[in-house]
Amino acid sequence: MNYRMIKKILGWLLLFDGAFMLIPLVTGLVCREKDCVWFLPAIGLCIVLGFIMTFFMKPKSKQLYAKEGYVIVALSWIVMSLFGALPLWLSHTIPSYVDALFETVSGFTTTGATILSDVEHLPQCMLMWRSFTHWVGGMGVLVFVMAFIPLGSGSSMHIMKAESTGPSVSKLLPGVKTTALALYSIYFVMTAAQFVLLLFGGMTVLEALNTAFATAGTGGFGFLNDSMASMSSYNRWVITAFMLLFSISFSSYYLFLKKRFKAAFTMEIKVFAVIVILSIAVITYNIRYIYPDLRDAVEQSSFTVASVISTTGFSTSDFDVWPELSKTILVGLMFVGATAGSTGGGMKVSRFVILIKGMRKELETMVHPNQVKKVTVDGTQVPHEVVRSVNVYVVCFVLVYAISMLIISFDGHEFETNFTAVAATINNIGPGLHEVGPSGNFSFFSVPSKLVLIFDMIAGRLELYPMLLLFSPATWKK
Amino acid sequence: MNYRMIKKILGWLLLFDGAFMLIPLVTGLVCREKDCVWFLPAIGLCIVLGFIMTFFMKPKSKQLYAKEGYVIVALSWIVMSLFGALPLWLSHTIPSYVDALFETVSGFTTTGATILSDVEHLPQCMLMWRSFTHWVGGMGVLVFVMAFIPLGSGSSMHIMKAESTGPSVSKLLPGVKTTALALYSIYFVMTAAQFVLLLFGGMTVLEALNTAFATAGTGGFGFLNDSMASMSSYNRWVITAFMLLFSISFSSYYLFLKKRFKAAFTMEIKVFAVIVILSIAVITYNIRYIYPDLRDAVEQSSFTVASVISTTGFSTSDFDVWPELSKTILVGLMFVGATAGSTGGGMKVSRFVILIKGMRKELETMVHPNQVKKVTVDGTQVPHEVVRSVNVYVVCFVLVYAISMLIISFDGHEFETNFTAVAATINNIGPGLHEVGPSGNFSFFSVPSKLVLIFDMIAGRLELYPMLLLFSPATWKK
Repeated sequence: MNYRMIKKILGWLLLFDGAFMLIPLVTGLVCREKDCVWFLPAIGLCIVLGFIMTFFMKPKSKQLYAKEGYVIVALSWIVMSLFGALPLWLSHTIPSYVDALFETVSGFTTTGATILSDVEHLPQCMLMWRSFTHWVGGMGVLVFVMAFIPLGSGSSMHIMKAESTGPSVSKLLPGVKTTALALYSIYFVMTAAQFVLLLFGGMTVLEALNTAFATAGTGGFGFLNDSMASMSSYNRWVITAFMLLFSISFSSYYLFLKKRFKAAFTMEIKVFAVIVILSIAVITYNIRYIYPDLRDAVEQSSFTVASVISTTGFSTSDFDVWPELSKTILVGLMFVGATAGSTGGGMKVSRFVILIKGMRKELETMVHPNQVKKVTVDGTQVPHEVVRSVNVYVVCFVLVYAISMLIISFDGHEFETNFTAVAATINNIGPGLHEVGPSGNFSFFSVPSKLVLIFDMIAGRLELYPMLLLFSPATWKK
Repeated sequence: MNYRMIKKILGWLLLFDGAFMLIPLVTGLVCREKDCVWFLPAIGLCIVLGFIMTFFMKPKSKQLYAKEGYVIVALSWIVMSLFGALPLWLSHTIPSYVDALFETVSGFTTTGATILSDVEHLPQCMLMWRSFTHWVGGMGVLVFVMAFIPLGSGSSMHIMKAESTGPSVSKLLPGVKTTALALYSIYFVMTAAQFVLLLFGGMTVLEALNTAFATAGTGGFGFLNDSMASMSSYNRWVITAFMLLFSISFSSYYLFLKKRFKAAFTMEIKVFAVIVILSIAVITYNIRYIYPDLRDAVEQSSFTVASVISTTGFSTSDFDVWPELSKTILVGLMFVGATAGSTGGGMKVSRFVILIKGMRKELETMVHPNQVKKVTVDGTQVPHEVVRSVNVYVVCFVLVYAISMLIISFDGHEFETNFTAVAATINNIGPGLHEVGPSGNFSFFSVPSKLVLIFDMIAGRLELYPMLLLFSPATWKK
């Protein structure tokens, strides 16, 4: 284990974490809020510590292997959240440190589950920090760092693989640095586009920024207590559209810009589109009698389906009171999630495609043992290791899920609450059903349960392996 | 596909199905019940059809391959239930045929989920038929048939593999026929032992027979409306002990009798014992204040843990009102299930052992890509195909589960009801929680939902693959 290199990269990360906090600090200064001074000690701490860790004790070797990649990513997300929670806690915006940590982890992991019942009275700087963590976490913090900091290409690829979403990751461009820059440019332009469209919809600059950040990261922190329920129809449709757009792999946008349309329009995107359209249709039919007219029902179901499958978690209506069929579909969508390489969470559509194709292949092998069958997606064969890794992913997922459920059931809340609290955090959605539904929040959980859900949010965002490996003795064996 | 051979074996099966019904018929004659006449047309139909299918149109080849094995097993269980439901339906004991089918499938698959709210007024012959289906289904009907009917050894092995429980099946003895006979002998002796012990406990012959059959098959149909709640403490402990004994692989008993103690006491049994003891301890602590003294709490939790993990589903108390922690543990145990090669359902402890070891291996491979690691259980290496098949099993399980949940959610019942209804049927337990808890029953579901749950019960008992392959186009391709 190359400890010195890990320390150095964590140092860089802290420097960036400090720099990120300049944005809410400036917001606070512009709005003349007293609370923004609490960003200063946090920024100071990040910079001093980051500086020491980065520039003292040069590493002997810059070489990183797969295991260092996983460890760095897992540690980065933990460290970044531990420091990112400081302003919320120091300013007494959230008096308990565990709660502040929950909120920050929920931000960076783009979950959007909150422990706050009243967000309308938060200072603007804190609102900005919450939504900006979504934006940073959405695309990946280390991807951001690597866009600026030179690392050996082999080394940074291990980090990129461990942080990016989806079953298999490849560079779009020859270098990791150029790939990271290209992805962030698309991300930036799309966020800006949504920001402008929301300004047209009558939002203030701060509101539009908050909403655009939270949508782009598929996060879901809002600035209103009713999330998006009191928004205008125009703004809702803009948000619906962008939630879906940010659920699409950024590689596809890149390929699209390069006019490689066929390569851009992958199988995964087609399946995603079919799932979205079918779900909207069934739910609209199922909830039609709740709303005054069909247009309303379409709007509500489109928004909610987009919000859940993109794992954003904004809500316009309390879908906890929808009929059971709609709720079951929504719970199903929570697990499906967005497409690989997007900012969305969940298991990812491509994993489901590989799972189902792999299952069919296995079943066919049982009845025709002498035929050699391959799993292919988009005309190319899926490597055996990817199929296996996806199968193992499901097993890890089920086990982490079961253990989480067991621990939080000590609190004594109802089955549906526990089940969807884990679903909403491990899939980085935000709201679940029942007590953690759109009209509830996560504050009532005990500290151990909150720690479990914090683990689940990070594990879910990093797609399990980094967090599992961080706590696995095999990783630390010489 | 060797259609003629499939037809012939299904014919044998019908002849046996008819013969099985002689037992409730005799029960009815002894008790002088009018309703027992309705067994006559069912027996007649089975014998006539079975005779025609078995002895007309000799198959050209006796050779069966893996795919025929799966198809025969799946079809056998469906056909056997379709005919087995006739007496219940013709006698108007259960007026709806789908309900009668549900009850019969629940019997053969040893689920024990009932659509009846009042079993105390059932005729003795019908009670006997219900519990006898448990006994037959527990060890496997085709295993029973093969103990008497000569088939080519290679062919019958495919059938035995498809019907037996657990991730990998091997013959104990050189021939399938001798293996089947050895297993059924142990099964018979153990059932007889429980019968005698229950007679000592003051049960009538019929009550003791019913209970012994239902326990041996880990089924769970009772003859009292409160299941086992009003039973004496002695009888409860006898049942608790035998539920656990019938959760143990019959191969282990055989090896034990052959004094191969080390081979008999497998890793799986040890893990099973640890899970049982831990669960009883935690639940006892969790429910201690509900019962007058600790002895009571121990008795209740032992009985319930044994009932759920063995997938029997008897109940002595309404565990739906227990605290959430206990309920979550019980739901977890529903999925774990008994050991491979027993009459119990669920995923089986050995699958979990292989899953967890396989997961650890995969995680270790990620950080040490050049080390070749193997999954070993009981000192021998688990073949790669078994590990893969267990992983695929989990994937199939999750998908069948999700689709089942989605369909039954059309009925509009609550999430916990739907979730545990599927859990209780696919794992062959019997009662779930909430509306399908120990004090409820399954009658309120719509016909489509009942059909889904019927599918789940058979799929669960046959460990998914036979039912999935029966409905897979690849199986029927030339």
